[in-house]
Amino acid sequence: MVREGFWTEVFQLNGSVTPYVFGRLIGFTAFGAIIYALFQAFDLTNGLATAHYEYIGVVLALLLVLRTNAGYDRWWEARKIWGGIVNQSRNLAQIGLVYGPSDSDWRNSYARWVAAFSATCHHSLRGEQKFNEIQKMCEIVGTAETHRLSQAEHMPMYAIRRVADLLKEAVESGKLDRFYFLQAESERARLIDHIGGCERILRTPLASAFSIKIRRFLFLYLMFLPVAIVDAAGMATPLIVFLVAYPLLALDQIGVELENPFSKQRLNHLPLNQISETICGNLMASIEELPPVIPHNASP
Amino acid sequence: MVREGFWTEVFQLNGSVTPYVFGRLIGFTAFGAIIYALFQAFDLTNGLATAHYEYIGVVLALLLVLRTNAGYDRWWEARKIWGGIVNQSRNLAQIGLVYGPSDSDWRNSYARWVAAFSATCHHSLRGEQKFNEIQKMCEIVGTAETHRLSQAEHMPMYAIRRVADLLKEAVESGKLDRFYFLQAESERARLIDHIGGCERILRTPLASAFSIKIRRFLFLYLMFLPVAIVDAAGMATPLIVFLVAYPLLALDQIGVELENPFSKQRLNHLPLNQISETICGNLMASIEELPPVIPHNASP
Amino acid sequence: MVREGFWTEVFQLNGSVTPYVFGRLIGFTAFGAIIYALFQAFDLTNGLATAHYEYIGVVLALLLVLRTNAGYDRWWEARKIWGGIVNQSRNLAQIGLVYGPSDSDWRNSYARWVAAFSATCHHSLRGEQKFNEIQKMCEIVGTAETHRLSQAEHMPMYAIRRVADLLKEAVESGKLDRFYFLQAESERARLIDHIGGCERILRTPLASAFSIKIRRFLFLYLMFLPVAIVDAAGMATPLIVFLVAYPLLALDQIGVELENPFSKQRLNHLPLNQISETICGNLMASIEELPPVIPHNASP
Amino acid sequence: MVREGFWTEVFQLNGSVTPYVFGRLIGFTAFGAIIYALFQAFDLTNGLATAHYEYIGVVLALLLVLRTNAGYDRWWEARKIWGGIVNQSRNLAQIGLVYGPSDSDWRNSYARWVAAFSATCHHSLRGEQKFNEIQKMCEIVGTAETHRLSQAEHMPMYAIRRVADLLKEAVESGKLDRFYFLQAESERARLIDHIGGCERILRTPLASAFSIKIRRFLFLYLMFLPVAIVDAAGMATPLIVFLVAYPLLALDQIGVELENPFSKQRLNHLPLNQISETICGNLMASIEELPPVIPHNASP
Amino acid sequence: MVREGFWTEVFQLNGSVTPYVFGRLIGFTAFGAIIYALFQAFDLTNGLATAHYEYIGVVLALLLVLRTNAGYDRWWEARKIWGGIVNQSRNLAQIGLVYGPSDSDWRNSYARWVAAFSATCHHSLRGEQKFNEIQKMCEIVGTAETHRLSQAEHMPMYAIRRVADLLKEAVESGKLDRFYFLQAESERARLIDHIGGCERILRTPLASAFSIKIRRFLFLYLMFLPVAIVDAAGMATPLIVFLVAYPLLALDQIGVELENPFSKQRLNHLPLNQISETICGNLMASIEELPPVIPHNASP
Repeated sequence: MVREGFWTEVFQLNGSVTPYVFGRLIGFTAFGAIIYALFQAFDLTNGLATAHYEYIGVVLALLLVLRTNAGYDRWWEARKIWGGIVNQSRNLAQIGLVYGPSDSDWRNSYARWVAAFSATCHHSLRGEQKFNEIQKMCEIVGTAETHRLSQAEHMPMYAIRRVADLLKEAVESGKLDRFYFLQAESERARLIDHIGGCERILRTPLASAFSIKIRRFLFLYLMFLPVAIVDAAGMATPLIVFLVAYPLLALDQIGVELENPFSKQRLNHLPLNQISETICGNLMASIEELPPVIPHNASP
Repeated sequence: MVREGFWTEVFQLNGSVTPYVFGRLIGFTAFGAIIYALFQAFDLTNGLATAHYEYIGVVLALLLVLRTNAGYDRWWEARKIWGGIVNQSRNLAQIGLVYGPSDSDWRNSYARWVAAFSATCHHSLRGEQKFNEIQKMCEIVGTAETHRLSQAEHMPMYAIRRVADLLKEAVESGKLDRFYFLQAESERARLIDHIGGCERILRTPLASAFSIKIRRFLFLYLMFLPVAIVDAAGMATPLIVFLVAYPLLALDQIGVELENPFSKQRLNHLPLNQISETICGNLMASIEELPPVIPHNASP
Repeated sequence: MVREGFWTEVFQLNGSVTPYVFGRLIGFTAFGAIIYALFQAFDLTNGLATAHYEYIGVVLALLLVLRTNAGYDRWWEARKIWGGIVNQSRNLAQIGLVYGPSDSDWRNSYARWVAAFSATCHHSLRGEQKFNEIQKMCEIVGTAETHRLSQAEHMPMYAIRRVADLLKEAVESGKLDRFYFLQAESERARLIDHIGGCERILRTPLASAFSIKIRRFLFLYLMFLPVAIVDAAGMATPLIVFLVAYPLLALDQIGVELENPFSKQRLNHLPLNQISETICGNLMASIEELPPVIPHNASP
Repeated sequence: MVREGFWTEVFQLNGSVTPYVFGRLIGFTAFGAIIYALFQAFDLTNGLATAHYEYIGVVLALLLVLRTNAGYDRWWEARKIWGGIVNQSRNLAQIGLVYGPSDSDWRNSYARWVAAFSATCHHSLRGEQKFNEIQKMCEIVGTAETHRLSQAEHMPMYAIRRVADLLKEAVESGKLDRFYFLQAESERARLIDHIGGCERILRTPLASAFSIKIRRFLFLYLMFLPVAIVDAAGMATPLIVFLVAYPLLALDQIGVELENPFSKQRLNHLPLNQISETICGNLMASIEELPPVIPHNASP
Repeated sequence: MVREGFWTEVFQLNGSVTPYVFGRLIGFTAFGAIIYALFQAFDLTNGLATAHYEYIGVVLALLLVLRTNAGYDRWWEARKIWGGIVNQSRNLAQIGLVYGPSDSDWRNSYARWVAAFSATCHHSLRGEQKFNEIQKMCEIVGTAETHRLSQAEHMPMYAIRRVADLLKEAVESGKLDRFYFLQAESERARLIDHIGGCERILRTPLASAFSIKIRRFLFLYLMFLPVAIVDAAGMATPLIVFLVAYPLLALDQIGVELENPFSKQRLNHLPLNQISETICGNLMASIEELPPVIPHNASP
């Protein structure tokens, strides 16, 4: 009934951050055990009231939740921008193919270069520009242009310029009305905004002072935790350290994973590959698909 | 005075997630009873201080509330986008019918295809594309076109392309001024954005690492809860477990229900059916309704 | 110095939700007294640790605050949209009256129909469409048109269509330049967005599973509260129940009041009446007010 | 290194809300002392568990923080809108002066009326419309027009209409290309949105049920506080009341101060005066400043 | 696997705010030690219940987190605006170079002035306008214009006006179609919005009453902390004061650091230098780079 069922998700390992934090978790738990052993061996008590310690824990939790939230917002913004790339690519192609020249060469090139834009965005955001990394582009724009792309200063800007060249050609040969052009150009401008938005997210991590600070607090907090609770918790010290450390370390790691939504090395990276291939497929199909005339008087 | 009265809502079952979480709730409560029985039978005490356990509970609650909030935001965003589909359909139709050709065939087709767009969005988001699933479309665009729709790569894009074809025809036959066209086209572009936005929400669940983590914490928390409180709570252990588990499990379930606002299987899915039928009705009516001339000097 | 002074607001009854929750409040307090009496009479103790009970209270409070926040956001969004109706009405009128035909009949009708739009929005959002309910419209557009409005399928769309008819007439008679028309049309499109936005807020309450859940938790929480605290609080049990229940019930009620910002039966409904009358007044005045020529060289 | 140093800000009185809440603070502290004295004199104990009292405190704090946040959002939105007035005024002036007629009378009037718009916004938002209150406008648009402004129904709409008159004149005399006009008109429309946005913030306080409720809770909470803690805190009762009441009362007051960002009587009102004078200065300067021809081949 | 590894970030000093708060931290810790010594020396106890003190701590933490959040939002908004400057500069340049005159002088000047805009924004936001401070501009627009810039009232407005002059020249000499111009002009208008947005963030600190209050509460809280805990914590008093004061003071400082995202003296200032140099580089390159004709029939 629900996504994969409650119990499935509880025990699912795939897609979890647990493996990433396992080492640290064991480390802190072991440290808790050592502290307990020391207190036991030398018969120590520290008489620490844990109330204020908890208070620090609340501040820390608030910070972690805040950072996770900020990370999620970045991730969702990135997804929105890629949604925009899909929308504007679809619309730009449709405007050109419906309102533009009927010349099949032009139509072919146009659809290919619109499709090429999202493909170059995808490669560019993953840092791939060498010819062998972007080889698949050959299927879209041919080998010669793929070589040029691999040497361009900025691949997506090169692709979108090609679209502009084609629009200009169509306008100046009188095959694309200037009013139609206005619409196409405004969609083209939004594509430039979208790739810029992705690059902003890619190149600007969370303010570093902010994120370093959180990790240092987390470390200090988990180091002092066994000392603070050993009197009251006794033998259960390592267990409690484990139960407290697990969500905190996991939250910290999730914040990190969400930070770069484009890198394949992150757990929740967006399926750029798949999205841009879908766009290509659709656009390629839309060149061929010539719809028949419309029956004006569609009687129900 | 208020929506349905305080007491009505308290006891209302319809629309509640309680049935969905009932099994889990009973399970955790029973586990609590077993733990109590074991401790009783073997006369155990564990001397666990529960303070830190509560702290984990606070972190968990923060996470659940955060996820519920994120789910609600998605749901509201989806509602906003459908609101946009209503607005842009209304306006696109009005622009065409007021400023466009007076030719009744054209007007008829135009209103039908604008109405068809929202109907195809509705079907497409619910994964219905077979002819028998979209049969109602016949009333809007006729059987022939409904067959074509059922084979289109992307139904809403097919419908909106029909609108573009009609606009082009009107412009090129000189019956729609290019300045009027600019307005219609900009509304049409927004419709493409709207369907893209819905698909983004449909295809991108919450970052999975995030949501799996929450369910695992929830599980761990509720498993250890009876152990942590059995000393202090005694016989009341299962009751407290029940009272704590109920809101947490329900919150978790609500987060899941809100995640996909389009599926009929979710509790709070949007009434897409109803919205798109209202649009159709309005647009159909607006073709006929030919308003009389306006009395310029409306004396009050 | 401050709005109405701290003390005035503390004791102010007008505009408060207290009367709405009074009954429930007394009920829960009385129940607290009964529980205390029973425990006293049978000399019971329950040995319940209240710590976890408080934790549930925190979750509940978070949820209530979240819902109040969501309600406030809706309310503020509705206010923003009405602000937009004011802005676009003003601007649409100004564009027509400054750039449009100098023909006084046209100007008169135009200003009246722009004013009529906000008036019909106001009536439509409050569910008033019978002739006697919208009688005031006669002063704006005359009796005949008011009758037609009362039979229109959608009053605001009827009014905005009248504006479109007038614009079309002006353009086609050559009295309104097409470039001026573009501006007017884009403001007109935004008015359609605004009424759609209001209808979205009006017709979509908060996700119901969400709000029902909160009331059920609230009920369970307040029922068990006296049991949980009676050991520790003794005679003060009803007082504490009162002090806890008051803010929670009031918050719940405020959330409900904020949900529908248009209904007159809600405490904080927006002054639609007043806003739309101000728009009408301004627009009517702006027809007459013919400003003299501008002295170009305004020496200071 | 930091703004004014940590210690300076700690002890700074200027710009603080402390003086506003001083009376109430003393009052509640004194009440705390009296309660302590009574309990001492009659040797009372109340045996109240303070745990649930704290819980109410948390709800109250959440509400206060929420309101402060809502207040800050309004304040920042108001600031953003004024930023928009600056942007659109700059751009509207530049479009007119670069692309518009070279006629110096027109340029002079145009720049003056664009400048006048922000000046009238400033006066209008502070409720100043009498001739002597807006006397400074004489320097911008001359005495005659200032008199007319003082009698206009809506000063900013009057000013922006003057700008429209000037644009129309330029277009119809053929000195301003229609394509340039489109840009100017779209900036002009945004100025109308901006003043509407300011008026919305000015005229719509926070939902009143919301804010009254908070003050009543605050009052109840601070009245019962000494009773709740007197057993445990003893002689320290007034001190603790003071320490708790100070941040709560201050937060409440800050929320009030942020609510109206335009009034000079509020602590953090925006420097409208200064902003609008800067705009005027810039625009005046930009009339004179005639830049020389541009050296096309700027060799580095 | 993660950004720089968990442990690296924990111990990293570079980019941390710790050095900024070190003095205060030592101060409060020492004060804690003194309090302990006094209580020890005179054998005092104060019998203070710390529960309510913690509650104040929670309020304080909420406020600090709220302010950090507000600071982060400003920082991210500033980053978004600079992202917009990149996008609009790229697009404005591409529109001019693809659709504009083929005249190489014009192209050269145009690309240079578009590049100059972001460079002047960067200087202007850092308060640099003297000739020697902006000397690098000579490489972009030549020495003569750099001198003029150093005397302009507003450098970015001067640069963007140059762009307007060039566009006007191209339009009026018939080398830039008016429809192309519309697109360029709308990008130019957005650049003016962007610099205005940066100036708004630069010149409007957080509402001062808000931020002063937080520091005063922080001070009061940390002063009374050792007194409140000395009974329970004994010898550990200074340690607990240290552990509590460190995150609070650091959070406070991070809030301050995030407040002005443009100043080089702040830890997390945006790399304006680098961004604007990248823009310049790209634009300069784009003048030369003349792409060859497009092979229309790109066979895969």
